[in-house]
Amino acid sequence: IESKLPNLGTTIFTKMSKLAQEYNAINLSQGFPDFPPNQKLLEFVKQGLDENHNQYAPLAGLISLRKTLAEKLFKSYGSRYSAEEEITITTGATQAIFTAISAFIRKDDEVIVFKPAYDCYEPTIELYGGKPILIEMKAPTYKIDWQEVSAKITSKTKMIVINTPHNPSGTVLAKEDLLQLQQLVENTNILILSDEVYEHLIYDGKEHQSVARFPKLAERSLITYSFGKTFHVTGWKVGYCVAPEELMKEFRKVHQYNVFCVNHPMQWALNEYLQKPEHYLELSAFYQERRDYFLQQIKNSRLELIPAQGTYFQTASYKNITTEKDTDFALKLIKEKGLATIPVSVFNKNQKDEFMLRFCFAKKKETLAKAAAIINSL
Amino acid sequence: IESKLPNLGTTIFTKMSKLAQEYNAINLSQGFPDFPPNQKLLEFVKQGLDENHNQYAPLAGLISLRKTLAEKLFKSYGSRYSAEEEITITTGATQAIFTAISAFIRKDDEVIVFKPAYDCYEPTIELYGGKPILIEMKAPTYKIDWQEVSAKITSKTKMIVINTPHNPSGTVLAKEDLLQLQQLVENTNILILSDEVYEHLIYDGKEHQSVARFPKLAERSLITYSFGKTFHVTGWKVGYCVAPEELMKEFRKVHQYNVFCVNHPMQWALNEYLQKPEHYLELSAFYQERRDYFLQQIKNSRLELIPAQGTYFQTASYKNITTEKDTDFALKLIKEKGLATIPVSVFNKNQKDEFMLRFCFAKKKETLAKAAAIINSL
Ligand SMILES: CSCCC(=O)C(=O)O
Ligand SMILES: CSCCC(=O)C(=O)O
Repeated sequence: IESKLPNLGTTIFTKMSKLAQEYNAINLSQGFPDFPPNQKLLEFVKQGLDENHNQYAPLAGLISLRKTLAEKLFKSYGSRYSAEEEITITTGATQAIFTAISAFIRKDDEVIVFKPAYDCYEPTIELYGGKPILIEMKAPTYKIDWQEVSAKITSKTKMIVINTPHNPSGTVLAKEDLLQLQQLVENTNILILSDEVYEHLIYDGKEHQSVARFPKLAERSLITYSFGKTFHVTGWKVGYCVAPEELMKEFRKVHQYNVFCVNHPMQWALNEYLQKPEHYLELSAFYQERRDYFLQQIKNSRLELIPAQGTYFQTASYKNITTEKDTDFALKLIKEKGLATIPVSVFNKNQKDEFMLRFCFAKKKETLAKAAAIINSL
Repeated sequence: IESKLPNLGTTIFTKMSKLAQEYNAINLSQGFPDFPPNQKLLEFVKQGLDENHNQYAPLAGLISLRKTLAEKLFKSYGSRYSAEEEITITTGATQAIFTAISAFIRKDDEVIVFKPAYDCYEPTIELYGGKPILIEMKAPTYKIDWQEVSAKITSKTKMIVINTPHNPSGTVLAKEDLLQLQQLVENTNILILSDEVYEHLIYDGKEHQSVARFPKLAERSLITYSFGKTFHVTGWKVGYCVAPEELMKEFRKVHQYNVFCVNHPMQWALNEYLQKPEHYLELSAFYQERRDYFLQQIKNSRLELIPAQGTYFQTASYKNITTEKDTDFALKLIKEKGLATIPVSVFNKNQKDEFMLRFCFAKKKETLAKAAAIINSL
């Protein structure tokens, strides 16, 4: 057997969560909350089960849920998407991203990916013979150099992947970035894949610059969202993708043979739960409080950091402590200090090491306090 | 946008279920039960939610569930699969099939597919530039001509897809078939993708001939199973794939970037539920009773049929009634008689019309009785 993806090992998330368990470490590595979701959401699932929403949902998702999302998108971003033709419920944002790439990328197509990046874009592009064109953003500000992007665009550029709020850096794109992107792709056939799973986790009064706000970008964009990230249920694997009809038609062709449809009782419950917009509108405040608590707790540590603007990840440089490789230092932290984090180099271009770690602060205050005590002792 | 899958329209299942609703027809088209799952299974999901199994499951699935399945596979088929390395929980069997094809099929690889066939194999093969090599099985016995298979195997043959019990025909493969297959692939590198989602729906005392029973086949096989089909919860989208470690390693590389992992509370519940093997051992009798009831009800109709040996589908020829095209006749049945079925030609090679319809009998007796009344009036 000759592997189609020869260079892949175990993902960092699997590795770190396993080690965290093994060493009984405080786990700020993989991005998931350690507190339960809202009880009301659970009650809705139970009701969905009892009312027997247990058979296949429609291929594109429950129409009731899609209608609710169309309204939400209009209220949040002023964008009009047709529930019938332009919104598809997916098995989490990961399946949405995989499916979007599957539907459009062919051999030798170039796809621009900004590094650091979450680990799922490049292998999927390569699975279809596409070429990831990597553009580096540098710690600690992680700004995109749009001139470099312009220089890297060729006649083979098929897609540009963006992600805001950004994992792992916790930065967000500004309106100015989106306008620059718009200018670059105008009069081209380049598609945008916009990973916006942290849309509601954005701090200090900032506004999420969804691609959906920019009609000239939206017309060529597939945007992915996640209920798992939004409602503290990463294990439910429900998300969605929105795109103009012409693109969504192609997306659904792959979607239907990839998963056919998505968990029905969970979809039903999420629709009920979304009827109260406060269920997502209050999220920024909720997570900002955790971010602030974590920052406060570690303010006297030897880490150097810039407060996260979005996501539930805080990155920090440890170069005042040691100049060990971040992968080595992260391993030592788990094994010797009982704290699991993610070394940022795994997300970087050529695994470039900038002595940065990523901490997930979607945790109970008591968990964050214990982690902070370890960090302060370094 | 040039489509990667230009020839695909809406799936027959979506079309028929939509029409069934529109015309308020009795729906024996898409394969799903119209009765609720076991209440105990629902209670386990509720417990899983309350005990907060709501965050990411491990990439390959809950190890507790995988261990239970390893035991089940050993008890059922005498085959030893490692829970750690050789079993992966998937978003239904559809995602397992998609992922298996994704992990191994490259441009110009040939994949042998027997027709009629469920509709997801060919588009997925084509998405990767592979070539489906179609071999016809003829109504009403749908036997595989192994000499023809032998003649169609070339140096480019990468995979053979089999499906037993078989959708749409309701037939099953005999031990003799599996031995013939074994002989053909011995000393080749050909992989087998064995779709066994109806493993527990098999009648008249027949034994399911799982590929897992034949070590020389199993060593080159990816086998897919479905909890949705087995436990009347097609809308939960949980299934699994088993394969030798070397193959499973490649499967998981795609799986992790396709969906990363599968619904956690449902996995947890299914594991609890599987602790009582009677929950699946009693299924054959349960469905056989429904098949027999349906056959009994329509025995004086003008349909010609051979009792289904497995699955929850019964096919029948209507050529004593009319020689209209099956797609036309199926439409007329919905619109004028209020009965939704699936015209078998949609599964056939070149849509060959043999005047056959497929009826799903995973329905309440009262639903089957109403359908029978319509059938008897034709
Ligand atoms: C799918 S596991 C990774 C979760 C996550 O988004 C992260 O930790 O970056
Ligand atoms: C995924 S919809 C189809 C369900 C099914 O297996 C069938 O009706 O053949």
